[in-house]
Amino acid sequence: MTRTDTAPQAPERSEVRVNHADLLACTARVLTAHGLAPDRAEAAAAALCHGDLTGVRSHGLANLERVYLPALRSGRIDPAAEPDVVSDLGACLLVDARRALGLWQAGTAVDLAVARARRHGAGLVWVRGATHFGCAGHHAARAADHGMVGIVAANCGRQRIAPPPGGLRPLLGTNPLSVAAPALPGHPFVLDMSTTAVPTGRVREAARAGRAVPEGWLADDLGRPVTDPAAFDRGEAHLRWLGQGDGAYKGFGLGLAVEVLAALVPGAGLGPWPDSPGAGGGAPAAPADDDIGFLAAALAPEALRPGFAADAATMFAEVLACPPADPGAPVRYPGWHEAERAAAHRRGGVPLAEAVYRELAAAAEAAGTVPPAVIGGM
Amino acid sequence: MTRTDTAPQAPERSEVRVNHADLLACTARVLTAHGLAPDRAEAAAAALCHGDLTGVRSHGLANLERVYLPALRSGRIDPAAEPDVVSDLGACLLVDARRALGLWQAGTAVDLAVARARRHGAGLVWVRGATHFGCAGHHAARAADHGMVGIVAANCGRQRIAPPPGGLRPLLGTNPLSVAAPALPGHPFVLDMSTTAVPTGRVREAARAGRAVPEGWLADDLGRPVTDPAAFDRGEAHLRWLGQGDGAYKGFGLGLAVEVLAALVPGAGLGPWPDSPGAGGGAPAAPADDDIGFLAAALAPEALRPGFAADAATMFAEVLACPPADPGAPVRYPGWHEAERAAAHRRGGVPLAEAVYRELAAAAEAAGTVPPAVIGGM
Repeated sequence: MTRTDTAPQAPERSEVRVNHADLLACTARVLTAHGLAPDRAEAAAAALCHGDLTGVRSHGLANLERVYLPALRSGRIDPAAEPDVVSDLGACLLVDARRALGLWQAGTAVDLAVARARRHGAGLVWVRGATHFGCAGHHAARAADHGMVGIVAANCGRQRIAPPPGGLRPLLGTNPLSVAAPALPGHPFVLDMSTTAVPTGRVREAARAGRAVPEGWLADDLGRPVTDPAAFDRGEAHLRWLGQGDGAYKGFGLGLAVEVLAALVPGAGLGPWPDSPGAGGGAPAAPADDDIGFLAAALAPEALRPGFAADAATMFAEVLACPPADPGAPVRYPGWHEAERAAAHRRGGVPLAEAVYRELAAAAEAAGTVPPAVIGGM
Repeated sequence: MTRTDTAPQAPERSEVRVNHADLLACTARVLTAHGLAPDRAEAAAAALCHGDLTGVRSHGLANLERVYLPALRSGRIDPAAEPDVVSDLGACLLVDARRALGLWQAGTAVDLAVARARRHGAGLVWVRGATHFGCAGHHAARAADHGMVGIVAANCGRQRIAPPPGGLRPLLGTNPLSVAAPALPGHPFVLDMSTTAVPTGRVREAARAGRAVPEGWLADDLGRPVTDPAAFDRGEAHLRWLGQGDGAYKGFGLGLAVEVLAALVPGAGLGPWPDSPGAGGGAPAAPADDDIGFLAAALAPEALRPGFAADAATMFAEVLACPPADPGAPVRYPGWHEAERAAAHRRGGVPLAEAVYRELAAAAEAAGTVPPAVIGGM
């Protein structure tokens, strides 16, 4: 999940609706067939379907065949990996994920941070050797469920997507940052953002749907705006930073800060790093988004002072009470609309692009199981 | 310090240069005359003059007569306050600053965080009852001097400056966020940014200099761009968020995240909070920027794994090695240009707007001491 504005991502041209529980169960069965233990598969399915459930499709099931299943088949993700605690200082831990599936393992890192925060006021779990974990906000919100503040930030391994302001060579990934906190009942505060103008998933989503993108998203090598989303995967356009133009140094700076906090601290793969000399003998180079680093932190305010939860409810209610410029568009905080959409989709079914549903159905068939029944659309 | 781009803030129309050591000594004497103990006055003078030293004048001596001396005279800042540790969990502390001068006290909070990080891997010091501390990056960089990552984030007490996207009433301050880390020798990484498009100091600086501001900085109640900086203090324009337009929800979300991390957690004054009923009897309301909250955190990577410092040097060297679009403008990281300007100003004198120098000279005279000798300009 990387945008926090009011509108859900634009619907694909043709979509279906499926029951949420059925969707989770089918996705878990597909993952089990790829070697995940049932509890890991269930947690990973919830993390992956969270994107579609909350209307942030760029981080949902569209990535099942694009990212996760190919990496499980090729061994880049080890479904049975046992993450290893490298150092343990009480409040702080360093973990080597050993290529475990990030969709599952990031949640365990947050749970560990929550347990340590109960004792020490804060728990900080740094992870290296990690793989993609989907929506950062899904994991950070686990801490909010315990009355704590959650922070999840990740780099993209050695992947280089966006060049620094004034530079010609991409150096960093989209480096997501999420902060979650208790707010109003059923509606935690969940900021979940890429430090680039948008994440890559939204560019690819526009390309699939045949839509041009706004001028602020992409630029060519000379910094000129590009609106054809397909130019991104052709290597003819780069993502721009949050705050593009005058403020791009802040977006780039935040991206670098996430690189430091999430990957330089634990010693994961880094975007800005000298290229290693060719391995020779025709050996393929390791894919750039291996060895991702992330930080999963939980802060326990009630361990420091009583009254935090009540103060949070008062503060976020005051945000909602702000008079809106448009009476039909009340003021909300990040996470509100995602919670509303999730509730609606749990009741009325989760919308999936038809192409994504077909991929899931094919993966289910290959795994010897059935796809979730279509309850609307198509 | 709130911008991290390549250009120093535009020079005022008429300026002087003064020796850095003389400037520090004079500023410290002025603060001592206002009740600060000598060690506190020295630390506070270094924090205040840091803005002018690094070319970030919006947070420098221009605020001596605008913010600090009036608050010391009126008792809103207590020069002799002894901050009180409210809770101590080892890695985490909650401190009530009791209106101590933030310019001094923020540094002590970082030092405390550094000491705890040595033992626990991380030290997190939350402060309430705080007052303005100047450049967040000056304080965060203290942790980098110890080979650690520093994080300093503050709210602006109950001050409300920027409305949420789609809202008519300001809710939050400029909520600065700074992350500092060891990088190349003499050039730490220092991101120091407001979560609004710019901090208020840059708007007031433009107003003093009679310059229009770019369209992205200010907007009126209907969201239309405002370029007259004086409209801000007339109440006719609000600051815009970082990422204005499409990305404003990220800027606003970051501002709210800082409000949570820096002020809601320690129980400081909050922007989004119901107005208290009038005190009656003509009693003046407390100024909105009292009871500021901030977080001072230090992370000690070398306590978790060896090799962090060498990896940081390699990573930041690779940023500098990025081919620039303009051969005359090499790629740099946040903090680089500030370090370069500081070195030049230590050698050749610190530039001050003539009006600011006159204020300092008058404050020095009132304190029974002499201003720093002018070594250039005027």
